[in-house]
Amino acid sequence: MEFTVRQISKMLNGQVKGDDNARITMLAKIQDAKEGQVAFLANPKYESYIYSTAATAVIVRKDFQPKKEIKSTLILVDDPYSSFTTLLEEYHRLLNFQKTGIEQPSFIGEKCEIGTDIYRGAFSHIGNGVVVGNNVKVYPSVVIGDGCVIGDNTILHPGAKLYAGTRVGSNCVIHSGVVIGSDGFGFAPQEDGTYKSIPQLGNVIIEDNVVVGANTVIDCATMFGDSTVVREGVKLDNLIQIAHNVEIGRNTVIAAQTGVSGSSKVGDNCVIAGQVGISGHIQVANNTSIGGKAGILKPVKTEGQKLLGMIAYDVHDYLKSYAVFKKLPQLDDRLRDLEKRLNGKS
Amino acid sequence: MEFTVRQISKMLNGQVKGDDNARITMLAKIQDAKEGQVAFLANPKYESYIYSTAATAVIVRKDFQPKKEIKSTLILVDDPYSSFTTLLEEYHRLLNFQKTGIEQPSFIGEKCEIGTDIYRGAFSHIGNGVVVGNNVKVYPSVVIGDGCVIGDNTILHPGAKLYAGTRVGSNCVIHSGVVIGSDGFGFAPQEDGTYKSIPQLGNVIIEDNVVVGANTVIDCATMFGDSTVVREGVKLDNLIQIAHNVEIGRNTVIAAQTGVSGSSKVGDNCVIAGQVGISGHIQVANNTSIGGKAGILKPVKTEGQKLLGMIAYDVHDYLKSYAVFKKLPQLDDRLRDLEKRLNGKS
Amino acid sequence: MEFTVRQISKMLNGQVKGDDNARITMLAKIQDAKEGQVAFLANPKYESYIYSTAATAVIVRKDFQPKKEIKSTLILVDDPYSSFTTLLEEYHRLLNFQKTGIEQPSFIGEKCEIGTDIYRGAFSHIGNGVVVGNNVKVYPSVVIGDGCVIGDNTILHPGAKLYAGTRVGSNCVIHSGVVIGSDGFGFAPQEDGTYKSIPQLGNVIIEDNVVVGANTVIDCATMFGDSTVVREGVKLDNLIQIAHNVEIGRNTVIAAQTGVSGSSKVGDNCVIAGQVGISGHIQVANNTSIGGKAGILKPVKTEGQKLLGMIAYDVHDYLKSYAVFKKLPQLDDRLRDLEKRLNGKS
Repeated sequence: MEFTVRQISKMLNGQVKGDDNARITMLAKIQDAKEGQVAFLANPKYESYIYSTAATAVIVRKDFQPKKEIKSTLILVDDPYSSFTTLLEEYHRLLNFQKTGIEQPSFIGEKCEIGTDIYRGAFSHIGNGVVVGNNVKVYPSVVIGDGCVIGDNTILHPGAKLYAGTRVGSNCVIHSGVVIGSDGFGFAPQEDGTYKSIPQLGNVIIEDNVVVGANTVIDCATMFGDSTVVREGVKLDNLIQIAHNVEIGRNTVIAAQTGVSGSSKVGDNCVIAGQVGISGHIQVANNTSIGGKAGILKPVKTEGQKLLGMIAYDVHDYLKSYAVFKKLPQLDDRLRDLEKRLNGKS
Repeated sequence: MEFTVRQISKMLNGQVKGDDNARITMLAKIQDAKEGQVAFLANPKYESYIYSTAATAVIVRKDFQPKKEIKSTLILVDDPYSSFTTLLEEYHRLLNFQKTGIEQPSFIGEKCEIGTDIYRGAFSHIGNGVVVGNNVKVYPSVVIGDGCVIGDNTILHPGAKLYAGTRVGSNCVIHSGVVIGSDGFGFAPQEDGTYKSIPQLGNVIIEDNVVVGANTVIDCATMFGDSTVVREGVKLDNLIQIAHNVEIGRNTVIAAQTGVSGSSKVGDNCVIAGQVGISGHIQVANNTSIGGKAGILKPVKTEGQKLLGMIAYDVHDYLKSYAVFKKLPQLDDRLRDLEKRLNGKS
Repeated sequence: MEFTVRQISKMLNGQVKGDDNARITMLAKIQDAKEGQVAFLANPKYESYIYSTAATAVIVRKDFQPKKEIKSTLILVDDPYSSFTTLLEEYHRLLNFQKTGIEQPSFIGEKCEIGTDIYRGAFSHIGNGVVVGNNVKVYPSVVIGDGCVIGDNTILHPGAKLYAGTRVGSNCVIHSGVVIGSDGFGFAPQEDGTYKSIPQLGNVIIEDNVVVGANTVIDCATMFGDSTVVREGVKLDNLIQIAHNVEIGRNTVIAAQTGVSGSSKVGDNCVIAGQVGISGHIQVANNTSIGGKAGILKPVKTEGQKLLGMIAYDVHDYLKSYAVFKKLPQLDDRLRDLEKRLNGKS
C-alpha cells in the first residue's frame, strides 16, 4: 500500500509543511524510521530524533517549534499520538481488507448470494445456499458449509471452518484454524457400556463485532432451532472451547485455552482469564471477573465478583488461604507442638 | 432432504391418518413447527398446540383422541418421543452422509483403493496407497497421508489431517481441524544444551465407532511397528492432546482440553472431565472417573475410583480438604490464639 | 523408499557379510522383522531370534560369532544399537524429505523467490513476495501469507498457516494445523463497555532448529517492527498458546497445552511441562523447570529453580504443603479437640 503525505494528512485533519506529494508505504517509530515511512513526535524527550530521522514525514503538534533544520515533511495535528493511533488502525484495516477478487481454483456451490468487494482465496470452499455480505474476505482454505450466513466486513482467515448452518455477523474476525458449528459432545450411555451419539442438529450464531482467536472451537447446539450464541462485541482468544448450547454475553472477553461446558450462560461484560474451566448448565452473572486457571463449578449469582481458585471463590480470600497453604507444614508442626505440650501437662 | 409422510411413517412402524403424500423437509418442536415440518406430541401439557400448529404432520400416540379438529396429518405410533428421537438420529445420519461424488479440483495419489458411495470434497488430498472403505465422506481440505486406511461409513470433516500410515476404523467421526499421526514429542538432550529429535516412526490406530472432536491432536508412536491406539467406542471432545504411544481403552469418554502424556494407558469405560492432565508412563484403571482440571500423577490401580484435585485423589476427601482450605486463615488464627493462651499460662 | 544392503552398510561404515545387493524397504525389531527389512542385534538375550528371523539383513557387532547358520545378510559395525539409531534418523529424514516437485493445483503469488528441491503439495497457497529456501517441503493445504520468509530444510506439514510477514528459520518442523502470526489479543475498553481492537502490526520470528507441535498458535507482536520470537532450538509440543510479544529462549522445551501470556520472556534451557500457564509481562529465568498445571504469576528471577503449584513455588515445598492439605479435615479436628480441652480447663 502506498499513500501520499497529502492523503495521510487528510485522514488526520492535519496540515502539511513540506512536500505533500511524497510517498509513504509504512509507519515506524521515530527512532527507527526510514525513507518512505511516516513517524510521530509526541513526547519531547524524543525531539532530538526529528533532526536526524530519515522518515519521509513526521506527525507533530500544531504548535511545534523546531530548533534546527528538519529534512522530513511535517504533518501538523492537534494530538500526534492519537493521530498515529488512528493511522495504525487505518493501516491495519487496509492491510486486512486489501485482498479482493477471486483466486483460482476456488469452489462455490449453488444458490449462493455473494456481496460486493469480496475476496475469495484459492482453495476456499463455499457450500450451497450460502449468503455472504459485502466486503467479506474469505482467505485460502476456508471452508463455509451449506446454508451459512456471513455479515458485511467480516474476515475469515486461512483455514477457518464453518459447519453447515452457521451464522456470523458483521465486522467479525474469525482467525485461522477456528472451527464453528462442530457437533456438541453428547452421548447417551447404553446398557452394554457403549455410548450412542445424540444427534446435534442446532447451529451457532456469532453476532456482530466478534473476534474469534486461532484454533478456537465453538460447537453447535443440540436441538433443531436452538443455537450456541456468541453475543455482540465478544472477544475470544486462541484455543478456547465453547461447548453446545452455551451463550456468551455481550462484550465479554475470554483469554486463551479457557473452556465453557455445555448449556452454560456467561453474562455480559465478563473478563475471563486463560485456562479457566466453567462447568456445564450454570449461569455466570454480568461483570464477573475470573482469574487464570480458575474452575467455576457453581452458578455465579452476584454481579461484579472477582473469583479465583481450582473451585473458585473470592480472589482475596483465595489468596489469603493460599498464603496459609504455603505454610501448612509449619502449621502442622505448631499444632503437634501444642498437642505435645497439652499432653505433657494433662 | 425431502420425505413423504408415508416414508417417515414407515421408518417408525406407524400408521398415517391424513395425507400420506404430504412432503416433509424438517423436524421441529410442536410449538415452533411450520408447514413442511413434522413435530411430535408426547407430553399431554403440549396438547393445545396440536389444534393450532402449522406442522404438516404430527407424531402422536396410537390411542390419542383429539378433542377438536386437527389440520395436520397424524402419524400414530406406540411411543411418540422415542419415535421422534429415531427420526432425529436418522435425519442427522442422512444430513452427514448426503454428500456424494467428487468435487473438482480434488487430489488423489497412486495405487489407492477407494470404496463406493464416496464423497471427496474439493481441495481434499488423498496421498499414495490409501485404502478408503465404502460410504466414506472426505470433506473439503481434508488431507490423508500416504498409506492411510479408512474404514466404512467414516466421516472426515473439513480440514481434518491424517499423517502417513494412520488407520481409522469404521463408523468414526473425525471433526474439523483434527490432526492424527503428528510426531510424538521426543527429544534427546545433548551435551551442548540442544535437543536432538528422536525419530517418530510409529503410527496411530483409531478403532471403530470413535468420535474425535474438533482440533484434537493424536501423536504417532515412536517406534516402527508401535501405535498410539484409541480403542473401539471412545469419544474424544475438542482440543484434546493424546501423546505418543498412549492407549485409550474401549468406550472411554474424554471432555475438552484434557491431555494424556506419552505412553500412558487409560482403561476402558473411564469418564474424564475437561482440562484434566494425565502424566506419562502410568496406567489408569477401568471405570475411573476423573473430575475437571484434575492432575493424575501416579498410576490409578483400583477400578471405579472417582478422583479430583491438582494431584488427584478421592473426590470426597478432596472436597473436604478444600472446604478447610477456604477456612485456612481462620484456622491459622485459631492456632495462634491457642498458642497465646498456652504461652500465657506456662 | 528402497536401499541396497550395500548402501545401508556405507551409511554405517560397516562391512557386509552376504548379499550386498539385497533390497531393504523398512526397519524392524529383530523379533518382528520380515523379508525386505533390516533389524539389529545388540542385546545378547535376543540372539536366538537371529537364527530364525526372516529379516533380509541384520546389523551385528563386528566380533559377533554365530552359533548356528544365519540366513540373513549381516552388516558388521562397532555398535549395532547406535548404528540402528542412525538408520532410524536417516530413515525419518528421508521419509520427511522424500516429497519433491509441485502437485497441481497449487497457488503461488507474484515476486516470490523459491529455492531448489522444493515440494509444494496440491492446494498449498504461497502469497506474494514470499522467500523460500532450498529443500523446503510445503505440504497440502499449507497457507503462507505475503512476505513470509522460510529457511532451508524446513517442513510445513498439512494445513499449517503463516500470516503475512512471518519468518521461519532453517531446519524447522511446523506441524499440521499450526497457526503463526495471528493477531495478538489486545483490546482497549471503551466507555460504553465495548472493546476496540488494538491493531496488531508486528510479526513472528521463529529461529533455526525449532519444532512447533500440531495446532499450536503463536500470535504476532503488537507494534510495527516488533516480533514475537521463538529462539533457536526451541521445541514446542501440541496445542500451545504463545501470545503477542513473547520471547521463548534458546533450547527451551514446552509440553502440550501450556500457555504463555503477552510480553513474557521465558529464558534459555527451561523445561516446562503440560497445561502450565505463565502470566503476562514477566520474565522466567534460564534453566527454570516448571511442573504440570503450574501457574507462574510472578517473575522467576533465580535460575535453576523447580516450581509447582496453582500459584507456583518450589516443588518440594509445594508437595509438603499438598501432603498436609490432604489431611486438613483431620488437622481441623485436632485443632477443635485442643480448643475443647483448653476451654474445658479454663
